[in-house]
Amino acid sequence: MNKFTNIAIIGLGQIGLYLYNELRLKSSEIENKTGKKIKVIAISAKNKNKKRKFKINKRIFYSNALKLLQEKKIDILFECIGQSGGMSKKVVEKALKNRTHVITPNKALIAKHGDYLASLAEKNNVNLEFEASVAGGIPILRSIKEGLATNNLKKVYGILNGTTNYILTEMENSNENFEKVLKKAQHFGYAEPGNPKLDLNGFDAFAKVRILSALAFNNQISEHKCIMEGIQNIDLKDIKIASQLNLRIKLLGISEIINNQLFETVHPCLVSKNSYIGNVSGVMNAVITQGRPVGETILQGEGAGPGPTSSSLLSDLLSILRGNIRMPFGISHSKRKKVKPFNSKNYTNSLYLRFEVKDKSGVLSLITNRLAKYKISIKRIIQTPDKKNKKATIVIITHKTSEINAKNCLYIFKNNKNILKFPTLIRLYS
Amino acid sequence: MNKFTNIAIIGLGQIGLYLYNELRLKSSEIENKTGKKIKVIAISAKNKNKKRKFKINKRIFYSNALKLLQEKKIDILFECIGQSGGMSKKVVEKALKNRTHVITPNKALIAKHGDYLASLAEKNNVNLEFEASVAGGIPILRSIKEGLATNNLKKVYGILNGTTNYILTEMENSNENFEKVLKKAQHFGYAEPGNPKLDLNGFDAFAKVRILSALAFNNQISEHKCIMEGIQNIDLKDIKIASQLNLRIKLLGISEIINNQLFETVHPCLVSKNSYIGNVSGVMNAVITQGRPVGETILQGEGAGPGPTSSSLLSDLLSILRGNIRMPFGISHSKRKKVKPFNSKNYTNSLYLRFEVKDKSGVLSLITNRLAKYKISIKRIIQTPDKKNKKATIVIITHKTSEINAKNCLYIFKNNKNILKFPTLIRLYS
Repeated sequence: MNKFTNIAIIGLGQIGLYLYNELRLKSSEIENKTGKKIKVIAISAKNKNKKRKFKINKRIFYSNALKLLQEKKIDILFECIGQSGGMSKKVVEKALKNRTHVITPNKALIAKHGDYLASLAEKNNVNLEFEASVAGGIPILRSIKEGLATNNLKKVYGILNGTTNYILTEMENSNENFEKVLKKAQHFGYAEPGNPKLDLNGFDAFAKVRILSALAFNNQISEHKCIMEGIQNIDLKDIKIASQLNLRIKLLGISEIINNQLFETVHPCLVSKNSYIGNVSGVMNAVITQGRPVGETILQGEGAGPGPTSSSLLSDLLSILRGNIRMPFGISHSKRKKVKPFNSKNYTNSLYLRFEVKDKSGVLSLITNRLAKYKISIKRIIQTPDKKNKKATIVIITHKTSEINAKNCLYIFKNNKNILKFPTLIRLYS
Repeated sequence: MNKFTNIAIIGLGQIGLYLYNELRLKSSEIENKTGKKIKVIAISAKNKNKKRKFKINKRIFYSNALKLLQEKKIDILFECIGQSGGMSKKVVEKALKNRTHVITPNKALIAKHGDYLASLAEKNNVNLEFEASVAGGIPILRSIKEGLATNNLKKVYGILNGTTNYILTEMENSNENFEKVLKKAQHFGYAEPGNPKLDLNGFDAFAKVRILSALAFNNQISEHKCIMEGIQNIDLKDIKIASQLNLRIKLLGISEIINNQLFETVHPCLVSKNSYIGNVSGVMNAVITQGRPVGETILQGEGAGPGPTSSSLLSDLLSILRGNIRMPFGISHSKRKKVKPFNSKNYTNSLYLRFEVKDKSGVLSLITNRLAKYKISIKRIIQTPDKKNKKATIVIITHKTSEINAKNCLYIFKNNKNILKFPTLIRLYS
């Protein structure tokens, strides 16, 4: 055995570079806690001479990551490229086959190829760790795999995307519209400057939901199509009306076992301002698990950024250096079941429906009649006239109704000349 | 190596018995997750024939725990007696010397003898695990030792005692006094029926603070005398006045590094009703860590009861069966430093002071003059007369002042005929 544990970092973006610096600063602390000396012997990125925040050792630089793996004997590799396939997958695959432990914050890769890569890791008797892939610095995967390991978990949900939570919080606080706040988020580095789509449309949170349910319920990562909605269509108007109703809009990721079927979803929810989840604000993430016998457990912390992400990457490193756990999903791949999907048509919720209508008699009764036809019963109506423009906003809170019912019902409002745009639907979280 | 991992449970009270039953129910799940078969081969308690909620196997029963350890080869032992020394210590000591792994929920034992027992465990190359000793089902120790391991933690605090949190919550909600609510807590099993003193006076929370700081700051368990106050003197009146001020009283345990010195304390705090910690209610516990680079991390869950405790005990079991970590405090005993104590006289806080006085002129100015003499400046005064009894309640919220200043100042009010009882002091958490 080597005197040093040899480490490589592939990808030197915001995360990889910060990690590189942390490893330098904390090597003696890591030795203290594990008894192992570490050494970064190779790094890789596209551009060797790019201007970077921290200085890199150019003598250990490779522009070709696969070549790096061919030439160097690496004990532990950090994959920080961040693609859902492509070079990220190639590098991880090759490393595992070389019997190199792999640590990655790459949720897209794990959500898509996690099962295959986990079985590869098990076969080669090395670790594949991805604590940083879900909820940044919060040790949620480790808590599910270890701290809550023998509980019968039935539900995991929470705020899994810091970008969208920042935008929703800031819209409410600053009274500014979505576009303006998105620009602010990009300015502060909370949202991708180029393409924030994967955060905004719920895709990022959905990848995390898939990883969480695989761990919580010991199932293989699901591929079912489920409800995935982002916050792109949330209007400042909705946030204001919600606030008057003592509600707040949050983008929740939810994974639940219902009648032995798996239900995974990401969509905006109206939650009470007095609830715990309603008060998780800004870039914070929170994950709530419900299980027996432990009851409800909450973990909250910073969900993104190089600091929190690096904290989780290093926790994985320590785990490997201490010789801990081998099975990436806490249980052997062969023992992880496939779970049937819950039919999302049967998903039931109270709904918030916002109609923008012409302000003339008969319109409200038109809406209520149609809802009645679909057996959607009304709990509350708030009508706000806009006399000047001869328009009105009608908000209806319904009693619980099924997803399919709501969708079918809304559809018939599509081509009505008195209804000025397709109604906004937000589910109430119960 | 044996085909089975042999387990013993010492102590069959509420916790030990529940655990015994859980091990029976979950042995195949444990085998699934660890590849190891477990078998409870010995149990011990005082009384073999006591009526118990779950049936025990009397053929493996020992009334003498030390004899059990002499006669049986145990791989993993659960100590569930719960004494801070005595038989608990003897059993754990003997087991570790026999190279038996030990798991315990016993905070009093760990807070008192944890350093010695940890070094004994290290020497004998076995585990000593105590996740269940702090905050019941919340995987907080594991999170500090592993998930947040490389962060520079500066502060850990929270609600660490479910009994007192239940009482404070229930006093506010039901408008009933301390004695009445304590009886209710005992009735529901949230407080010891016989002697709830160790919960109420802050001792239980304090033991947890000591364990938390040892883990968070890598120091040896401290023995410094610090501020330890319970909730015995909290009056329904204080809860009501606090509520008017949009505040709530919580018993907080706080451990903090201030100028490289360790400050540990347990006392009631006034916190904002809008704060996170102000909304942790009932028997819930919550622990908040602050560190770099991870930021603030919150863990919340059920803090007591056999279900949550057993969840943590089993997480320790899995950790051992998976062959994880050896060092009880996450770092070798020899590397854990002694930390100087912070002088609690320099602890500064805004204070809530409640005076019960005779309703006559000059009393308020007497109080304000004396406070001024001690340079305690006043932020807010609320005087409520009780005309019928010719009394008045004066509540003063001060600006920040040091502990020593406050104590000295209060003392001079002790023998004043216009001040009807020694003033109540509650610190504002900032």
